[in-house]
Amino acid sequence: MFIGIDLGGTNIAVGLVSEKGKLIASGSTPTMSERDYTEIVKDMAVLAEKLLKENNIDKSEVKAIGIGSPGTIDSDNGVVVYSNNIRFNMTPLRDEMQKYFDVPVAVENDANAAAYGEYFASGDNASSFLAVTLGTGVGGGIILDKKIYRGFNGAGAEVGHTTLIKDGEQCTCGRKGCWETYASVTALIRQTKEAMAEDPDSLMHEIVKEYGSVSGRTSFDAAKRGDKTALKVVNNYVEYVAEGITNLVNIFQPEIIVVGGGISREGEYLIAPVRKLVEENDYNKLLRRTEIKVATLFNEAGIIGAAFAAKALIK
Amino acid sequence: MFIGIDLGGTNIAVGLVSEKGKLIASGSTPTMSERDYTEIVKDMAVLAEKLLKENNIDKSEVKAIGIGSPGTIDSDNGVVVYSNNIRFNMTPLRDEMQKYFDVPVAVENDANAAAYGEYFASGDNASSFLAVTLGTGVGGGIILDKKIYRGFNGAGAEVGHTTLIKDGEQCTCGRKGCWETYASVTALIRQTKEAMAEDPDSLMHEIVKEYGSVSGRTSFDAAKRGDKTALKVVNNYVEYVAEGITNLVNIFQPEIIVVGGGISREGEYLIAPVRKLVEENDYNKLLRRTEIKVATLFNEAGIIGAAFAAKALIK
Repeated sequence: MFIGIDLGGTNIAVGLVSEKGKLIASGSTPTMSERDYTEIVKDMAVLAEKLLKENNIDKSEVKAIGIGSPGTIDSDNGVVVYSNNIRFNMTPLRDEMQKYFDVPVAVENDANAAAYGEYFASGDNASSFLAVTLGTGVGGGIILDKKIYRGFNGAGAEVGHTTLIKDGEQCTCGRKGCWETYASVTALIRQTKEAMAEDPDSLMHEIVKEYGSVSGRTSFDAAKRGDKTALKVVNNYVEYVAEGITNLVNIFQPEIIVVGGGISREGEYLIAPVRKLVEENDYNKLLRRTEIKVATLFNEAGIIGAAFAAKALIK
Repeated sequence: MFIGIDLGGTNIAVGLVSEKGKLIASGSTPTMSERDYTEIVKDMAVLAEKLLKENNIDKSEVKAIGIGSPGTIDSDNGVVVYSNNIRFNMTPLRDEMQKYFDVPVAVENDANAAAYGEYFASGDNASSFLAVTLGTGVGGGIILDKKIYRGFNGAGAEVGHTTLIKDGEQCTCGRKGCWETYASVTALIRQTKEAMAEDPDSLMHEIVKEYGSVSGRTSFDAAKRGDKTALKVVNNYVEYVAEGITNLVNIFQPEIIVVGGGISREGEYLIAPVRKLVEENDYNKLLRRTEIKVATLFNEAGIIGAAFAAKALIK
């Protein structure tokens, strides 16, 4: 039995995860990220203990705990070196958690943890595996030889921060034209709004009235109902996603790339044309091809991946 | 004692390499790449035997042979799956070479072999190491955990074929705007010619008259002598190189990146401003930084790397 914790800017999600990676029970509590980290970790522990009790599992059955946190992580020492999202600075999450649970505690970057979860969920034991998350930003996780690849300083796998258009859209990272500024859901919403402004007759206006605001789904919903302006938004977005994935294929030639994040719930409607563009454009025309598929765990990836990171500690 | 062979489109370079990676002797012979592969391998073997004889080394002292070849390689079987440069197609270089030398033979992609050579030459045992070659194209090699990273199908590390400007310059790979189309020496020559056409008074015209044609050095030579148009070419080129290296840093956060290829002989004049731009723009502002340096082996990297690939076979 392992505990997997997905620490987000809004919520702390805690799950009890079996040896085989099955989510037995889960719950969540608000992060209230402006608090001191000791308060945040206390809430994690309290929620974990509550879940154990509710499921009649004795605390002694917990073999290890994994925490996925935003930011740059020093995994060796279980410390969040720095996070912009939750204001962590050399924050010793492991040591703090061990005040409540006297077991090994893994602290992992949240995107890496989610990728690790998707890796095990894919069940392929792939020698090389990439997860790309299209969300507020574009995140990534790299699993090579069954291990999370972090770079020598723990800050690696920032695949969203690679150039798609030099001197293009301003990115939050300080550069211009990063893949994230074109392929994130944030970018898709911007692209949707621009297209709506140019076409007052687009069905997207009606859809937005129904739902109250422009979302990543707006253009997809309207495109499926035949709106041409929306279809153009979707096609352009697909091109942006495919361009960055083609880059990753050319660099890594990984066995598998999974695409996650909210927008990946569009499933094959998004992924099939992305796959086609990658096949047309990548450098490998002759050899076995990278399999590109939709993530399967979605919101559970963080919890399950963190639990697997915990499991990896005690092997 | 190992034999390292660097098979190029123009020449076959063969070297005798000590256990410690020292090049004891080397020679070369024309590839004449239109010939059958059996002829090419025979010339490799003949040259190797000649070098052994000249240096009074008995054939029995050769423990293994490494061949770096252009193209996509099936390293497990010592076969060149496909090469556009030399027309190889499922070509069994290992088996052919073993007709002459009854020792283990490693066949490796030439860029990977060169990276592997630079890796050992750097002497750092870096856990993550990238080599970027700025030449006719932009090549790359990735060494992780002391091993060549090839991707699951052997076609990985094509770092030159990642987007710098979507829909930009036409690339030989079929896509548009690849890093290679801006940061290769071929691209630098194009950029130099364009700048010369716009400025008939540039010192570059005189330099070209001296040397006969525009080369990768033209703009660098003129810039060092104060020519403003040339300096602009160099500065733009530096930006292109830095942009792609920043991408690689964000993805890999490798301990070391070495930059090789002809133009890297410009040394710190090229690398110092690249390093500065990467430091200003990469995603890691707080942790230990990737060391960016000039390759040291240059033309010998292929031979020495191939020899190390051979050595890795018998461990």
